[in-house]
Amino acid sequence: MVFDPLTSPLLTDLYQLTMLQGYVEEGMNETAVFELFVRKLPPTRGFLMSAGLESVLDFLERLSFSEEEVSFLAKTGRFSDKLLDYLRRFRFTGNVHALPEGTVFFENEPIIRITAPLPEAQFVETRLMNLLHLQILLASKAARCVLAAAGRSGLVDFGLRRTHGAEAGLFAARSSFVAGFAASSNVLAESLFAIPVSGTMAHSFVESHEDEGEAFIRFAFANPDNVTLLIDTYDTLEGARKAVETSKYLRERGIGVQAVRLDSGDLLRLSLQVRQILDAGGLAEVKIFVSGNMDEYAIAELLDGGAPIDGFGVGTKLDTSEDAPYLECAYKLMEYAGRPRLKKSEGKATWPGRKQVFRSYEEGRMRGDLLTLDGDVQAGIPLLKPVMKDGERLSEPRSLKEIASVAKDQLDALPVSLRMLKTEAYPVMISDALNRLRESTEEALG
Amino acid sequence: MVFDPLTSPLLTDLYQLTMLQGYVEEGMNETAVFELFVRKLPPTRGFLMSAGLESVLDFLERLSFSEEEVSFLAKTGRFSDKLLDYLRRFRFTGNVHALPEGTVFFENEPIIRITAPLPEAQFVETRLMNLLHLQILLASKAARCVLAAAGRSGLVDFGLRRTHGAEAGLFAARSSFVAGFAASSNVLAESLFAIPVSGTMAHSFVESHEDEGEAFIRFAFANPDNVTLLIDTYDTLEGARKAVETSKYLRERGIGVQAVRLDSGDLLRLSLQVRQILDAGGLAEVKIFVSGNMDEYAIAELLDGGAPIDGFGVGTKLDTSEDAPYLECAYKLMEYAGRPRLKKSEGKATWPGRKQVFRSYEEGRMRGDLLTLDGDVQAGIPLLKPVMKDGERLSEPRSLKEIASVAKDQLDALPVSLRMLKTEAYPVMISDALNRLRESTEEALG
Repeated sequence: MVFDPLTSPLLTDLYQLTMLQGYVEEGMNETAVFELFVRKLPPTRGFLMSAGLESVLDFLERLSFSEEEVSFLAKTGRFSDKLLDYLRRFRFTGNVHALPEGTVFFENEPIIRITAPLPEAQFVETRLMNLLHLQILLASKAARCVLAAAGRSGLVDFGLRRTHGAEAGLFAARSSFVAGFAASSNVLAESLFAIPVSGTMAHSFVESHEDEGEAFIRFAFANPDNVTLLIDTYDTLEGARKAVETSKYLRERGIGVQAVRLDSGDLLRLSLQVRQILDAGGLAEVKIFVSGNMDEYAIAELLDGGAPIDGFGVGTKLDTSEDAPYLECAYKLMEYAGRPRLKKSEGKATWPGRKQVFRSYEEGRMRGDLLTLDGDVQAGIPLLKPVMKDGERLSEPRSLKEIASVAKDQLDALPVSLRMLKTEAYPVMISDALNRLRESTEEALG
Repeated sequence: MVFDPLTSPLLTDLYQLTMLQGYVEEGMNETAVFELFVRKLPPTRGFLMSAGLESVLDFLERLSFSEEEVSFLAKTGRFSDKLLDYLRRFRFTGNVHALPEGTVFFENEPIIRITAPLPEAQFVETRLMNLLHLQILLASKAARCVLAAAGRSGLVDFGLRRTHGAEAGLFAARSSFVAGFAASSNVLAESLFAIPVSGTMAHSFVESHEDEGEAFIRFAFANPDNVTLLIDTYDTLEGARKAVETSKYLRERGIGVQAVRLDSGDLLRLSLQVRQILDAGGLAEVKIFVSGNMDEYAIAELLDGGAPIDGFGVGTKLDTSEDAPYLECAYKLMEYAGRPRLKKSEGKATWPGRKQVFRSYEEGRMRGDLLTLDGDVQAGIPLLKPVMKDGERLSEPRSLKEIASVAKDQLDALPVSLRMLKTEAYPVMISDALNRLRESTEEALG
């Protein structure tokens, strides 16, 4: 039997089902509260950006087991009829509070809080984390590229070929757009998310022609509205000169060249030389686009060096979040049946109870966050918002443009020190109320 | 319009379609040869392992555009009627040579060779690389864990929650099984690939009960055939003592405890102490399973220290290939219309022509590889095999067990130096024939 990996509830860890079997046998169905948070930021990062909430709400809304899926589980022989019956009726009926997508956040701050009957709140863990972890990774890395590009608008996600699978490719396009990218190379992202797409030719196109200039002209005739010439297949400066010739030839035929692309070599030196060749050839309006091993560091170094680059194709290092390919995130039980819960494992202890984060600003910049208990009203803006009640969304899905605008406002409000590539710690304080709850919960455990 | 990301041909880079538009306009339909290879091994790696071929052959066999997909492309306004008509009839009709899944390989060695009319061979690039790159990453990382476990059979893939999306989660289960893992936590992997699954309880199960021992007993009653007790929620040694008590209580009721799991703390020290507690409590047959930040280095360190550990849950660092989250792989045009092709870009030059790899062995161990032209017969075993002709598979898909057996033989034949975690270079020589072709191709480019 083939189930759809993107939607099947079988995309989960076996222990979710064995635990459910325990809960169902015991009738443990009281309200549980779980929160997802990041224990520690990666050493190279000063902040993270939330993303992926819409896909989580989709997942929760349609979560159910088909008869075929239940039959498959029955055949494994692992599960009781009682559990299988329970799964046939299984739906997510809980409440969700979350950071809006595009929100900047820091360690220990809840990104999402699930309040639901224990088996439901437990079962959703694997896919919920799978969806949020990846999209947060990607949006956070893309946000750093956006900051490094310092207002230049031409960032394009180029990484599909090396994303970790198809779904990661789609989320890379969406998450980077949320963070401020202009476009993606991913055609499916255009169809699913209406993200602008971009791309023209590979080296193989040039190589398959007998002559580089001929390749340029043929390409332009076939794609007259979308001409970016890749000029580094053999020799970049020679390629730039051919781009000038080609451009004159094409202009006489009513076709404009929009840009040239460099994908190898010393991009600072070459972009300066190419700019000279283009300008001397009367192509001041033709833009320079670069790609190849781009990330926030490479972008910043090129721009700091004065490279006349108008746009960047950012691929593999963005789409695999190369410097930090995973986050130390955890989805932990904070409360069950009205009582706060706590894990004391070495190095992995948690803050118990339902939590909220208040963020203070000074002159439009974030000044510090306070992690406290839900209901303990403090100065600042509460970051977690209710987004789902009794299993139903509280509002229509946000448009990607709205989400991108939230992200832009957040990046604009980052403390100056966090806008830099080098990381600094942002102050996240723990409230008295939360400290007291942890102490009393620890004492109760003896 | 919503298309299935796992199968839609729109999961591609826009430039594949703009190049196709060029080729179709020009009638460039002669035979092209592309090869996928890894330019350079990651600094932490001494070898890579091929994986993912079956999914590539599936992709090539079913590659086609639905009328809805063509309509979507038409609406973008980017494509000529000629291209759209071409896409309606588009199929992959070419030949494929590839390393069998599970084969160990090294830099510059072709992993797959596509021989097909130029537009077809070009178009498949994005998804082909997306599929192979990820599965090679995962199998290669898993192989290192298998080597580090030095014959211990209890390696389990635990990483689904932090894989980069759903498809990566499935491939992590499959690729790690290929490399020698015993099981995965991923239930969907059981349904799709018949991979054994494994898993019992999380900390939240313990925390949601009023008492740790009660949680253990309740779990065992609900899952009598699958009892691994997680003992580190509050205090590992206390947890071990409770496991002993629980085990006695359960044994009287006909239920056996198979293992305990440790997920935090100093796992060497704790596993030794837990082993003592279990043995003293008459539980010599109960196994110790550990998880938490596992990778090949952690496994090797624990076993070198004499930790009495029977199995390892390896999660995030495996499933994100943490030390090397991407490979420097490239899919390059090697020949078109009977003529070898070459890219000269700085630092990214290619070996032209159709290539083959011959591997020499000495006393059952790999001694060195020779990269040469297809047809230049040399000593050793040729690694690339024909797997598809005129768009059709040459044989039935291999079973996962067969593939895992290929992988095991390959790992057994690794030179001793490459079995270690520290990397050493394996000799890959370039044949005279290939050197001559590169020179002559470069000369022809002038």
